[in-house]
Amino acid sequence: MTAALLNDEYYMRLALQLAGAASGQTGINPVVGCVLVKDGRIVGMGAHLKRGEAHAEVHALNMAGAEAEGATAYVTLEPCSHHGKTPPCSDRLIRDKVKRVVVAATDDNPLVAGSGLARLAAHGIEVTTGVLAAEARALNEAFNKYIATGRPFVTVKSASTLDGKVAAKTGDSKWITGDASRAQGHLLRHRHQAILVGIGTVLADDPALTTRLEVPGLNPIRVVADSTLRLPPDARLVRDGAAPVVVLTTERAPQERRRALEARGVRMVDCGPGPAVNLNAAMRRLGELEIGSLLVEGGGKLSGALLAAGLVDKLVLFLAPKIIGGGALAPGNFDFPGFETMSRAIKLERLQVERCGEDVCLSGYPRYESEE
Amino acid sequence: MTAALLNDEYYMRLALQLAGAASGQTGINPVVGCVLVKDGRIVGMGAHLKRGEAHAEVHALNMAGAEAEGATAYVTLEPCSHHGKTPPCSDRLIRDKVKRVVVAATDDNPLVAGSGLARLAAHGIEVTTGVLAAEARALNEAFNKYIATGRPFVTVKSASTLDGKVAAKTGDSKWITGDASRAQGHLLRHRHQAILVGIGTVLADDPALTTRLEVPGLNPIRVVADSTLRLPPDARLVRDGAAPVVVLTTERAPQERRRALEARGVRMVDCGPGPAVNLNAAMRRLGELEIGSLLVEGGGKLSGALLAAGLVDKLVLFLAPKIIGGGALAPGNFDFPGFETMSRAIKLERLQVERCGEDVCLSGYPRYESEE
Repeated sequence: MTAALLNDEYYMRLALQLAGAASGQTGINPVVGCVLVKDGRIVGMGAHLKRGEAHAEVHALNMAGAEAEGATAYVTLEPCSHHGKTPPCSDRLIRDKVKRVVVAATDDNPLVAGSGLARLAAHGIEVTTGVLAAEARALNEAFNKYIATGRPFVTVKSASTLDGKVAAKTGDSKWITGDASRAQGHLLRHRHQAILVGIGTVLADDPALTTRLEVPGLNPIRVVADSTLRLPPDARLVRDGAAPVVVLTTERAPQERRRALEARGVRMVDCGPGPAVNLNAAMRRLGELEIGSLLVEGGGKLSGALLAAGLVDKLVLFLAPKIIGGGALAPGNFDFPGFETMSRAIKLERLQVERCGEDVCLSGYPRYESEE
Repeated sequence: MTAALLNDEYYMRLALQLAGAASGQTGINPVVGCVLVKDGRIVGMGAHLKRGEAHAEVHALNMAGAEAEGATAYVTLEPCSHHGKTPPCSDRLIRDKVKRVVVAATDDNPLVAGSGLARLAAHGIEVTTGVLAAEARALNEAFNKYIATGRPFVTVKSASTLDGKVAAKTGDSKWITGDASRAQGHLLRHRHQAILVGIGTVLADDPALTTRLEVPGLNPIRVVADSTLRLPPDARLVRDGAAPVVVLTTERAPQERRRALEARGVRMVDCGPGPAVNLNAAMRRLGELEIGSLLVEGGGKLSGALLAAGLVDKLVLFLAPKIIGGGALAPGNFDFPGFETMSRAIKLERLQVERCGEDVCLSGYPRYESEE
C-alpha cells in the first residue's frame, strides 16, 4: 500500500471515485467527476449523474459558489466546449474565474477533442493534462468505443466450473457460483445499458434479467436474440414492465408473432435474412438505439458466436472452484467451432484476477489473432 | 506485510524454510528443519536431506558442537524416539544437553506420536508445541497421508484454457500455458516421487516426464496406466534411463508384451482383471512400492477417472487466459460422466489463487460429497 500524498493525483483520485460511483447511470454519456480545491481545501465536488442534466463541473461550481474564483478544478474528462444538451462547461469554468484546470483524459468525442482545453488556455487558465489518464479512460471504456464506432461496448459475463461448464449434464445450474459472484453480476447489470441473452435462456429459465441488489439498482434494457420469434408473449420479461424489451430477429420471423409481441410493447430489430441473427448487424442496430454498453449473459452458444465474430470487447468470467464433469453432455461456457491450433486461441489482455467470495473472477480484453 | 518479531515464530519460520527447501528429496520421509538458538544467536541449522541419512536435529547439533548445551531447538516435526534407519533424535537432544525444544507439528507416524516429546520432558527439557503447526503439517501433507494410509498422496496437475480445454480440436496443445507455469509444473515433478500419465499421452507425445529446470532437479519415477500394454519398448521414457518406469496394467495384457517391457527394465504392476486399470488397486500397489507422492499429468480421461473415484488429494490447475473453442472435439481437462446436479459437483477447499506469469494457478483440495 502506498501512502497518499497531497498532490494532483490525490484530488484526481477523488474525482475518479465520484465519476466511478455514477457508472451505469449516465446512459451513453461518459461518467465524469470534478473536485474544486482552493487554498488547501476542497470547495466543491460533483459528478455527472444523468444524461441531459448538469455536467460534473457545473455541480462542483454550484457547490463552491464564490469560492470557485482562483480555485483549481480537477476533472476526469476534458471539459466540453460545445452546446450539447447543456451549455459548454469550459465557458462556465472561465466565467467562474477558475485559475487552473487539471484533466485526466482528453475526450474522444470528435465534438470536443482538445477544443475545450484550447478554450481554457486562451482565457489564461493554466491547464494540466494526463493525471491518472489510464484510470480515467478505463472508467469510460464503453463510452470511448461507442463514440468512436456507434456500436455498443460488449461485455460477456459467464459463470462456470473449472472444467468450463455452465451446467450439469442434466441442465442443472443452481448454483454454480456463490452469493458474492452473483451480486457482482447484478452490479454489472446496473452498469450496462442493456443485457443480451439468447432465446434458449429465456425458454429454459424465464428470467427477469433485472438488477437485484441489497439496494435498488437500474434495470438494463432486456435484449433477446430470437431468430424465429419463439419468445412467448407471456414471458416474465415481456410481462413485468421492469425495463424495455428489444428482440433481435430475422426475416424468417412469422408476422403474427411479430404483431403479438409488438402489441405487448416489445421492440423488434431486424438483423438480416437468417437463419441466425446477424450479430454484426445487431450491434449496429443496437448502437442506433443509443445502447452504448451491452452485457451478454447468453449461455455458451451466444457467447461463443459473439467471440467467434470478434464482437466481444471484454470478458468477465466467474470461476467456481468446482468440477462437475459430464463431457459433451454438460454445456460449456464458450461453444463455437474454435481454432485449429493453440497459438490461434483468443487471448485475454490486461488480465485482472480477483477473489470473489469463494469464487475467482478473471476479466480481460480479448485479442483476436488476425487471420493468416 | 507484518514486520517480523524476534520470537519463537521467527526461528520456527526459518526452520520451516529449511524443511521446505528439501521438499522432494526425502522420498517417503517427511521434510524437517531444525534451528538451534543460544544467547540470542543461531548456533546451528539443519534439515533432513535424504532418506536413511541424518535427521534435521542431528545436522543442526553437529553444527552447534559444544554450543548446543543450554540451547533452544526449533524443530518443525516432533523429534523421533525410535530406532529407524538412524538413532532417535530425542536421545541426541538429551545427550547434547539442549535446554528447551520448540516443536511445530507432532508426528502422525504411529511409531513416534507423542513419545518423542514425552521422552524429552522426562529428562527435564522444556517442551513447547504447536508453533506454526498448520504450516508444518502442510509441508508434509504427502507424508501425513502416506503414513496413515499406505497410499500415495495424489496431486492432479492440469493446464487448460478458460473454456476447460487441454488442446485444440486438432489435438494441438503447444503451448497452452506460458514459461512460468511450465517451470512450476517441473518444480511439481521435482517435489513428487512419481509421475502418472495414461498410455494415450505416451503414444501421442512420447514424453520424457523428467524434471527440466534452470538447475538440475530430481526426476520422478515414471508411471504409465496401460491396461493392455501398448507402451512401445522403444518409447523415450523406456529408453532414456532417466528414472525407473512402472506400468500399471491388467490381466488382459499380452504376455509377450509384458516380457518385452520387463526385458527393458520396466516394472509391471497388476491392477485387476480389466478392462481398465483398477485405480484403487493401483494406488495400493504404488504405496507398497514406497511411492508416497504421485503427480498426475494424465490428460482429461485419467484425471477425470481419478477424480470420479475419489482418489485425488490435491488439484493444481494452471489456467491460461485464452479461449480455444471446439466443443466436444476439443478435449477437456476433466473427462468423466459427472454429476446430475451442480450441488453435487466436487468442490476445491482451501483454494489458493496465484498469478503465474501470464497465467493463473488455482490449487485446492477436493471435497467429495458423500453419496446420498
